[in-house]
Amino acid sequence: MTTGAELVIETARSLDLDVCFANPGTTELPLVHALDRVGGVRAVLGLHENVCTGAADGYARLAGKPALTLLHLGPGLANGLANLHNARRAFSPVVNLIGEHASWHLSADPPLAADIEALAGVVSRWTRRCVSAGACGRDMAEALAAVTSGRGSIATLILPHDVQTAAAGDAAPAVVRPRGYPAVDTDAVARAARLLAGAEAPAVLLGGSGLHGSGLEAAGRLGVTLIAEVSFARLETGRGRPPLRRLPYFPEQAQALLDQFDAIVVAGTRLPVSFFGYDDKPSRYLEDRDDVVLLADQEEDAASALTALAAEMGAKRAAPDSGEHPDEGAFAGSSAGLDADTIARVTTARLPEDAVAVVTAVSSSAAFYEHSRGAAPHTQIALTGGAIGEGSALSLGAGVACPGRRVVALEADGSGAYIVQALYGHARENLDVTTVICANQRYRILEIELERAGMRRPGSNATDLADLSRPALDWVSLARGFGVPGTRVTTAGELDAALARSLETAGPYLIEAVF
Amino acid sequence: MTTGAELVIETARSLDLDVCFANPGTTELPLVHALDRVGGVRAVLGLHENVCTGAADGYARLAGKPALTLLHLGPGLANGLANLHNARRAFSPVVNLIGEHASWHLSADPPLAADIEALAGVVSRWTRRCVSAGACGRDMAEALAAVTSGRGSIATLILPHDVQTAAAGDAAPAVVRPRGYPAVDTDAVARAARLLAGAEAPAVLLGGSGLHGSGLEAAGRLGVTLIAEVSFARLETGRGRPPLRRLPYFPEQAQALLDQFDAIVVAGTRLPVSFFGYDDKPSRYLEDRDDVVLLADQEEDAASALTALAAEMGAKRAAPDSGEHPDEGAFAGSSAGLDADTIARVTTARLPEDAVAVVTAVSSSAAFYEHSRGAAPHTQIALTGGAIGEGSALSLGAGVACPGRRVVALEADGSGAYIVQALYGHARENLDVTTVICANQRYRILEIELERAGMRRPGSNATDLADLSRPALDWVSLARGFGVPGTRVTTAGELDAALARSLETAGPYLIEAVF
Repeated sequence: MTTGAELVIETARSLDLDVCFANPGTTELPLVHALDRVGGVRAVLGLHENVCTGAADGYARLAGKPALTLLHLGPGLANGLANLHNARRAFSPVVNLIGEHASWHLSADPPLAADIEALAGVVSRWTRRCVSAGACGRDMAEALAAVTSGRGSIATLILPHDVQTAAAGDAAPAVVRPRGYPAVDTDAVARAARLLAGAEAPAVLLGGSGLHGSGLEAAGRLGVTLIAEVSFARLETGRGRPPLRRLPYFPEQAQALLDQFDAIVVAGTRLPVSFFGYDDKPSRYLEDRDDVVLLADQEEDAASALTALAAEMGAKRAAPDSGEHPDEGAFAGSSAGLDADTIARVTTARLPEDAVAVVTAVSSSAAFYEHSRGAAPHTQIALTGGAIGEGSALSLGAGVACPGRRVVALEADGSGAYIVQALYGHARENLDVTTVICANQRYRILEIELERAGMRRPGSNATDLADLSRPALDWVSLARGFGVPGTRVTTAGELDAALARSLETAGPYLIEAVF
Repeated sequence: MTTGAELVIETARSLDLDVCFANPGTTELPLVHALDRVGGVRAVLGLHENVCTGAADGYARLAGKPALTLLHLGPGLANGLANLHNARRAFSPVVNLIGEHASWHLSADPPLAADIEALAGVVSRWTRRCVSAGACGRDMAEALAAVTSGRGSIATLILPHDVQTAAAGDAAPAVVRPRGYPAVDTDAVARAARLLAGAEAPAVLLGGSGLHGSGLEAAGRLGVTLIAEVSFARLETGRGRPPLRRLPYFPEQAQALLDQFDAIVVAGTRLPVSFFGYDDKPSRYLEDRDDVVLLADQEEDAASALTALAAEMGAKRAAPDSGEHPDEGAFAGSSAGLDADTIARVTTARLPEDAVAVVTAVSSSAAFYEHSRGAAPHTQIALTGGAIGEGSALSLGAGVACPGRRVVALEADGSGAYIVQALYGHARENLDVTTVICANQRYRILEIELERAGMRRPGSNATDLADLSRPALDWVSLARGFGVPGTRVTTAGELDAALARSLETAGPYLIEAVF
């Protein structure tokens, strides 16, 4: 007898899914049982649901296919929402499987009952409550088609316990398929080509599939300034790759950069907006300009559009970026103290070829990006939705998606504390993840924003709420508690040596870089 | 000039609120500034929003007045939803202040934008988006009136950044007041009195204000068996207090207990339901019985109803419960190994008078409850909504609400890992909180539920997802990482000695009790 739960997992398996980031409870046990009965889907435990959803986001960005999550009822989904928000902004395909109370029990309003549809709707493009075991296969197939249509999105499939356990019969394979990307807009290609060709200072703002693979390669042949969106899902950079500037985080800096160009083509992202609204500063940087062409938006296929644009312009292969070539041994024995720039320089100098760099520190990320352009060729992923702390969960997903590649994560102490539980996954799965914690013992971004808001003499609450020094978090102990070895460093030389040790040792490691 | 943000805090202060559990970001900085400008409201930092909301729940249960939370946009609220779910089920009054993007910036759909109203609606009885600075005082007053009407509920006030910073003018005090409880139903009192008087085996099932203070005292005078609801918000127990059985967690056990009585009066809770639905086991235990009277439901004032019932029945003061009197020194030097029962016996024997016991371990809580009836008189709080891991956050709120009272928390390793960040609050606020981690290195409840579901030979995924032993969490290191000293114990004597040490030492402590 095939159950509804087994049909869900069989369908996922038949569509090439093989990883499920799980934090199940009682109402998900038939799905857990189905994982065992069906086989072929690996369950990876997260100690908190936001670990599962952040790992699913990281996995999807790198594996190029959807991840499953398995979450417990409404509160379990609620716990995972912040990283699903990030995943939604990354266009990562993720299917959440939510166990729900048995249909006949739900009317008793048991303690864990909550409005799962309302929670799911905030992050999901597709939400469904499965009503019969026989429909489980079709529902799962439609969920998968939904999340893999176009650039990717989130689906949530709610599976009542009685539906999971009921006999499903022999369900026919569902006749569904993902929708492709919208066709490349040839008019926009022609307009973009004319705009760039006639400009004195042309630039292309890139996102999505414009930041890696064939999209980045085509962009590199255009011979114009390339700018990456600030909150990118996945980017390839380092020596030999087309050089990409990055749109600054603060609006006045972003606006100033974009104002340097008399032609801007946007591919794979939307017209850029400010992260926060500040009085007298812009929300939208490219509004009211007539020298902008939207070649492909954030849900269109930037790679195809850029390839067409390069052909239209007769663009040739560009000379590779010479970059700086930092010397791996440049910091050996250095007694220089640490700051965000030094941490970035040391870490990028040590970055192994083909590494995955997970860069989600808040106030310490910009320096890393600048120096990473001269590092060995690597993939870089960033925070897309602004819900901070995703780094260690992204690293878990990246490690699962990319066995054989070293993951190097740059996270902060303030943001890292949000989902410190993800370190347990690094240990449990014995992943090659090296985490560098930029431990400045404060929410530095809050101090910066207080200054920007003109609060130059903040009061005791404002000072206190940005202060993480009483007591300071002891990251080496936290890592040990979750099974990850680590060390604390205070100089460039110590950081360099710790990185070198970790990179030649299999398994996870954490370096607390104090400044 | 008074700003909208200042008007919010002034109004809260004028209505006697003085604690705000906060994890602010950029869009909440005017509210942080207002905390400093207005004064009188203490900001307590949580490293994660679920710390803030769980602490608010614990604070509200013990302080008898609402707590404020300050959360960052939709993702911050999302992070705090699971404990707001628990707080909703506890009828804890909590007002969430959510900073939102400036109104004029929101239409740019910046990265952190999300449907805050949808998230808030899942847990809140009252949700409002403030539209002008001048309305901030009235909106805050109405939020407070909403959460303190009747037994208590959640309100969420969404405050756009531009509304927070705008000039508010001199707002008149808002003319609002909380609604009281519904009047006691005198017909129900008369019916309950007749039912109990004519029964051979009468019982009263208690919740809400029936479990402490005048409600419990009145119930104790009825001379009938008293049963506490399983998921209670706050209960007073220990030597000298009316003895309370507790409704079992599993439905067949709960049903069997209730079937022993030929008259059941329910006061301060709803007609009881099962936590989960199991095939062939009941959802609702008291359905189809004609020997049940609902004297006061979960939103009515059980204390007044029970007082009226005691008067109607001419009930006299009952003899206090003799209880067992465990000897404080009974476990000194004992080399007996640990299990849930032994941990409960040792901990309850050491429990100081007037302690607050926060008992949220999952599979280890029932034993604690049984033994706590013979402990020194104390207050006990439990998990109300089933979203696990709230213990350390509840303890933070309890410690802030009850300076001078020792908080003793019994938490598990599996559930404790969900919000381990709350330990930082214990250290930062230097609270007298002693946390005992029942470290059985597994999600024991999952194993029990697998057995109950007849999965006697679980496969590798089912076994693995319930297993927390590879690696085992090192709770002493985790505590140290967050600034809390601790020790690991494996025998009753070691646990006893560690408890004794902690209870005579100011400040937080964590004991990892391994079994």
